[in-house]
Amino acid sequence: MPEKLSFEPPRGMRDFYPADMAWRNRVFDAFRAAGEAAGFQPYDACVVENYDLLARKSGEEVGDQIYHFFDKSERHIALRPEMTPTLARMVAQRQKELSFPLKWTTIAQCFRYERMTKGRKREHYQWNVDIIGEESVMAEVEVVGAAVDALRRMGLSQSDFKVHVSSRRFLGSLLEKSGIPPERHAQVFLALDKRGKMPDEEIGAMLRDGGLSPAEVDAAFAVMDVKSYEGCAELEELFALARTAGFADALVFDISVIRGLSYYTGIVFECFDSKGEFRAIFGGGRYDNLLGAIGGEQATAVGLGFGDVVVTELLKSRLGEDAAVEKKGYAVGFMFDGQRDAAIAFAAALRRRGQCVNLSLSAQKPKKFFSRASQGGAAFAAFIGPDDVEAGEVRVKDLATGEETKEALAR
Amino acid sequence: MPEKLSFEPPRGMRDFYPADMAWRNRVFDAFRAAGEAAGFQPYDACVVENYDLLARKSGEEVGDQIYHFFDKSERHIALRPEMTPTLARMVAQRQKELSFPLKWTTIAQCFRYERMTKGRKREHYQWNVDIIGEESVMAEVEVVGAAVDALRRMGLSQSDFKVHVSSRRFLGSLLEKSGIPPERHAQVFLALDKRGKMPDEEIGAMLRDGGLSPAEVDAAFAVMDVKSYEGCAELEELFALARTAGFADALVFDISVIRGLSYYTGIVFECFDSKGEFRAIFGGGRYDNLLGAIGGEQATAVGLGFGDVVVTELLKSRLGEDAAVEKKGYAVGFMFDGQRDAAIAFAAALRRRGQCVNLSLSAQKPKKFFSRASQGGAAFAAFIGPDDVEAGEVRVKDLATGEETKEALAR
Repeated sequence: MPEKLSFEPPRGMRDFYPADMAWRNRVFDAFRAAGEAAGFQPYDACVVENYDLLARKSGEEVGDQIYHFFDKSERHIALRPEMTPTLARMVAQRQKELSFPLKWTTIAQCFRYERMTKGRKREHYQWNVDIIGEESVMAEVEVVGAAVDALRRMGLSQSDFKVHVSSRRFLGSLLEKSGIPPERHAQVFLALDKRGKMPDEEIGAMLRDGGLSPAEVDAAFAVMDVKSYEGCAELEELFALARTAGFADALVFDISVIRGLSYYTGIVFECFDSKGEFRAIFGGGRYDNLLGAIGGEQATAVGLGFGDVVVTELLKSRLGEDAAVEKKGYAVGFMFDGQRDAAIAFAAALRRRGQCVNLSLSAQKPKKFFSRASQGGAAFAAFIGPDDVEAGEVRVKDLATGEETKEALAR
Repeated sequence: MPEKLSFEPPRGMRDFYPADMAWRNRVFDAFRAAGEAAGFQPYDACVVENYDLLARKSGEEVGDQIYHFFDKSERHIALRPEMTPTLARMVAQRQKELSFPLKWTTIAQCFRYERMTKGRKREHYQWNVDIIGEESVMAEVEVVGAAVDALRRMGLSQSDFKVHVSSRRFLGSLLEKSGIPPERHAQVFLALDKRGKMPDEEIGAMLRDGGLSPAEVDAAFAVMDVKSYEGCAELEELFALARTAGFADALVFDISVIRGLSYYTGIVFECFDSKGEFRAIFGGGRYDNLLGAIGGEQATAVGLGFGDVVVTELLKSRLGEDAAVEKKGYAVGFMFDGQRDAAIAFAAALRRRGQCVNLSLSAQKPKKFFSRASQGGAAFAAFIGPDDVEAGEVRVKDLATGEETKEALAR
């Protein structure tokens, strides 16, 4: 008797049973369609990446959380925590041959080795959409527009979400006007990004510990009350172009959007559900230094990361747990072995016509067939008995309405 | 100046640039469509699996070749070399709730840590198609039929490939009739599976070393000359049902198909290109003991594994290197910044109509725009200048024929 193994996946890893996969496909299909509609080219790379590349980019928090190991030849490799360093590597590898601006997209599995809290997993999929080599705000328009399009394709309406937009450059200019010198800005960005996650008093203490005067700390908090992007040319242009492109109603200016990672340099954005129930749906912005940091030629870029977990929770909450299951195609069954050939031929004919057919593999009682068919994914069901073969036609039942029509069996 | 990092992927891992990704999508789309048409439900699991599960199943050669490591909590985890153990784990986990026979499919990334020969990679994607819990040969019909359908959807015709089919049970009965006792069959299967990969003399020596008499060795080789499956009920039934389903012309009986892994118990099959230029395109068969081996309830199963590498080589060879690029949608450009709004609005209108649009991000000279557009993936190109905005319409050029039509610009 063999020892019984655990049937659970490794800790923090996900299994996708067919019902889970229906959701994943709904989300991924929307990612793919939105990327394609906006003219982004798909690319991909292996989830196993060079550790050195990931360590170079990741900065603040990610370093500790990389799943890394040595292979048998003592090469230091890792399961990537995000796709951007790999994107930079691939672009740098062919920087002379590629044609810029370059618009690329991928759905990348990413791993993060973090403490398991509240069912948080150690791997997820992240849709990445990037434009490299375009200075103008058109890059932001196309990247954010594609993400808004994806949410609409998933079945969400404009009232379900908002993309909160700001600019690090704008925030920097406001801080400077308030008397906080530029060399302190990175530190202020990091501290202010914690707002909502920790009390303002603690953030204030962090800033004072970092050397800001009490007046400067007050000034930094006062900047957070700014409600208008007037005077920020790039944000004014973004909102105007989004209006022309038809998604300005999805945007809202929000000075508190800063983004944790230090590599953003211009416009930054984060998308939230309107009720504020979930974590950010996607986020991104402009980053200028990544290609240079890994040894390629400097190039400006705009990108976003859009995970599969939060949006799936949101979709289930707004559309219902079962909304991903789309009924289509046929279930075909047969009563006795004598009708098996007829069932196979009927299924083959339907499939040649482009239909999906779930063909029963053995003879069944009609009750069992229809019971299973109506629980499955088919829209129509056809059950072939001896009389049907004789008559040369079979009744096809619409499982939603119960209506029946007749279709010819092959002779 | 930061140290320059390597821009190469880790050894044995693949990058997919857009041209590579076009091929991968062509292959994956055919996998998905064929699985769906035949009523298989998609599932998936994380590429990180429990090492113990993989070690239990893998047997002969895979054990050494698993990419495995310990995580920070000293859990022994691995990058799966194949999907079947994970499938068995997931089914065993819910064996009481799931409804059988179960028809599942996935496209799984798999890792194998082997010596790098002739550009052989350490990771690939494998389409898996499995039916669990069906005794009859209908399971083989549906699994093999789906694979043949996938090859046709990729653009191959019947003359490009053949599925070579045999039965381990049939081979066993032939060996027994030749006087080789059943307890020697596993050993004979393994040795005969090496035919074509090593000289017959060495195989003969292996068998003699294993305790077969010279007469038994001769008998084993003689069985390899059998050209007919007459007398094997399951193969007779498979060929007859494949005829009804419309893919019998893709099948050929071939006693030499044995399959390396020991867990196959019945019909086995391997698909080859007709010219014999490439390794096997896909392979599989019936296996009865896997669920039991990991501690689940015994269940019969039929499955196949269909890798992405060989079929992509075959497709490039038969259809041409560029055949995966399908021209579709629009390239939209503009001459001066004054036409940018018109271009954005035109692109947005096309996208609302379901078209893919690659919108230029900055003003361009017409020559540069059309040169890049004709190299890209678009079928049509529209370039908006000042006169077009004035006239309220733009010429749309069919990039294949050069024909021009006019379309209205939004006002």
